[in-house]
Amino acid sequence: MGDKILLAHGSGGKLTHDLVAKHFLPLFDNSFLRQLDDSAVLDLNGRLAFTTDSYVVNPIFFPGGDIGKLAVCGTVNDLSMSGARPMYLSLSLIIEEGLSMSDLNFIMRSARDAADEAGVKVVTGDTKVVDRGSADRLFINTAGLGVIRPGVDISGSNARPGDRVILSGPIGEHGIAVMSQREGLRFSSPVESDCAPLNGLVEAILDSGVEIRCLRDPTRGGLAGTLNEFASASKVGIRIDEKSIPVGEAVQGACELLGLDPLYVANEGKLVAVVDPGGAGRVLAAMRECRYGGGAVTIGEVIAEHPGRVVMSTLMGASRIIDMLVGEQLPRIC
Amino acid sequence: MGDKILLAHGSGGKLTHDLVAKHFLPLFDNSFLRQLDDSAVLDLNGRLAFTTDSYVVNPIFFPGGDIGKLAVCGTVNDLSMSGARPMYLSLSLIIEEGLSMSDLNFIMRSARDAADEAGVKVVTGDTKVVDRGSADRLFINTAGLGVIRPGVDISGSNARPGDRVILSGPIGEHGIAVMSQREGLRFSSPVESDCAPLNGLVEAILDSGVEIRCLRDPTRGGLAGTLNEFASASKVGIRIDEKSIPVGEAVQGACELLGLDPLYVANEGKLVAVVDPGGAGRVLAAMRECRYGGGAVTIGEVIAEHPGRVVMSTLMGASRIIDMLVGEQLPRIC
Repeated sequence: MGDKILLAHGSGGKLTHDLVAKHFLPLFDNSFLRQLDDSAVLDLNGRLAFTTDSYVVNPIFFPGGDIGKLAVCGTVNDLSMSGARPMYLSLSLIIEEGLSMSDLNFIMRSARDAADEAGVKVVTGDTKVVDRGSADRLFINTAGLGVIRPGVDISGSNARPGDRVILSGPIGEHGIAVMSQREGLRFSSPVESDCAPLNGLVEAILDSGVEIRCLRDPTRGGLAGTLNEFASASKVGIRIDEKSIPVGEAVQGACELLGLDPLYVANEGKLVAVVDPGGAGRVLAAMRECRYGGGAVTIGEVIAEHPGRVVMSTLMGASRIIDMLVGEQLPRIC
Repeated sequence: MGDKILLAHGSGGKLTHDLVAKHFLPLFDNSFLRQLDDSAVLDLNGRLAFTTDSYVVNPIFFPGGDIGKLAVCGTVNDLSMSGARPMYLSLSLIIEEGLSMSDLNFIMRSARDAADEAGVKVVTGDTKVVDRGSADRLFINTAGLGVIRPGVDISGSNARPGDRVILSGPIGEHGIAVMSQREGLRFSSPVESDCAPLNGLVEAILDSGVEIRCLRDPTRGGLAGTLNEFASASKVGIRIDEKSIPVGEAVQGACELLGLDPLYVANEGKLVAVVDPGGAGRVLAAMRECRYGGGAVTIGEVIAEHPGRVVMSTLMGASRIIDMLVGEQLPRIC
C-alpha cells in the first residue's frame, strides 16, 4: 500500500478499493457500510434531522483533537441541537496527494473513537484525491441523520421574552487551541480544544422535561454569532451579563495577546440553550451532572426590547450591542 | 457584496449570513432550508437510502455541465441506483478565496436547475472558504436522502448466473469532455458530458415490474469498474460482448489519441442494470422510452464461471479478462 496517498487512491480503481477495504472498513465496520453499495439503506421513521458540514481546519492536528474527531463531533452536535438523537453519518474525504498513510489512519481512528463515544455509525462515504497544491492536506465532509424525539420542537426562531439563556461552559477553547497551534504560540498553560460530542448532554437537557426553545453550538462566529442568530430568527432581544460568561484564564490571556474577543472565538464542545424561565434551574442541574456540562451557567435572558439585537451589560456597568462578526476573525478554525 | 469570495465569507459572521441569505436561499428556497437551523427537519418513513460524494472535478466548467450540475446529478444518481426516489440533498461548499461571485452564482443556478429537473430539494448546507492555494477554486459535497420503494432489493451483491447486463447508452462521454477541456484539446466533433439525473430512468425500470438485481452508474473506474464490483460482490462471473458496447465515434477517436480505454472512462449519465433474464426485453423497451435511455442495449450476461471476474468476447473473437483499473487513468474527473 505504500506510505503516501497517491492520486490513484482516488481513481475509483483497485487502489481506492483497497484503501476502503483495508483501512476504512475494518475501523468503521457495520452491516450498512459493509455492503459497499452506492447508498446505505436504513430503516428510519418519524421526524428526521439532516445536516452537513465540511471541515477545513488548519492545522489538521491541534491540542485536544484533529480534523477526524472534529468532523464527527461537529455533525453529531448539529444533529443534537435540533433535538435529534444522532444515528448515522456519512464521511467523505478530499485528500491532497502525498498525505502520509499514517496520518490518515490516525485521523480515521480518531473519527471512529468519536463516533463510538457518540454512539453513531458511519454508514456511507467517499474518497477523492487531488494533486499536490490543490487542497491543504485533508478536508472532511460529514453529513448526519438523527431521529427527533416526539414532542420536541427546537428552533432558533422559538425564543420568547422571559426565557433564560444557558451556556454549558467556558468559551473560546477550540479557536484558541487551533490558532496557537497554527501560529506556533506557546502559553504557560496550553489551551486544549473543547471538541466533544454533545448528544449525551442534550439528552439530559431534554430528559429534564423543561420546554427547550433553542439549542445551538456556538462554533464559527462564536457565542456572539449564535445569540445574534437566535435574536434575529426569533425577532426578540437578548440581554447577556458579561460577568456571568465563563472564560478560562489561559483563553483570556491568549485573546488579549492576539487581540481577539472570546465572544467571537469558535467552540466545538459547548452549547447555548434558551429555555422556559420556570425550568432553568432544573436544566442547569441536569447539565451539571454531565461530562460536558459541568460548567453550565445562566448568562442572560430573552427580552422584548431591541428585537434582533444582543445587548451585553458590561463589567463596567454599561450596555453595549454585541453585533455579528463582520470581517474574518479566525479563518479555517473548523 | 463585491465581486470575489473573501475569507470572511466563510467566517460564520455577517458576510456568511449575507451570502446564504441573498445568494443561496432565493435559488433553493424551500420551507426546510428557510429555517436556517443547524439541521433540516424532515418527515420520512420506511427504508431510506443515504449517500454522499465530494466533487473535485477540474476544470469546474466543462462541455455539457459544471461542478454544480455534477454534484446534484451524481448524488441523485447514487440514490437512484439503490432503487430509491431521491428526495432531499445537502450541499456543502469549500471555496478558494478569490473565486468570482459570478462563477459561484452560475454554478449554484446550475445546481438548482439540476435539482429542479430531478425533483429534489436542497434542505441544508454549509459554506467554507479557504485561503488562496489551499483548494482549487471550488469543491462541492452533496449528501442525499431517498425513499426506497417497498419490495425493491437492489444491491451489487444480487447478480445471479443467467441474468442479463443492460447498459443505458454510449460510454466515456463525461471523462472525455472533462479531459478535453482540461488539456485544451479540440476535436472536429466536440464531446459533451452526459451528466444527467437518472431518477426518471430508474423509475421506468422499476415500473417495468421486472426483478432488478443490481443498478449502478459507472462513474470513476468506468464500465469496467462497475462490472468488476458486481462480479466481486455477487461472487459470479460477467461476460460482456465488445461489439455490443456502444462508444460514440468522437469518444473512440479521442480515446485512441489519448491512449485511453473507453471501458475505464467515467460516465455521469449512464447506468448498468443486471436484470432477470425473462424480463430483459421489457426493461430495454421501458428504458428506450426515456430521455436518458434511448441508447439502451444488452451487453452481456452473468455466468457461474470465473467468479469475481469480468470476461470480454473481443471483436477479434478472443476472450480477455477486464480487470479493475490499477493506476490512475483520469484524476479529478468528478
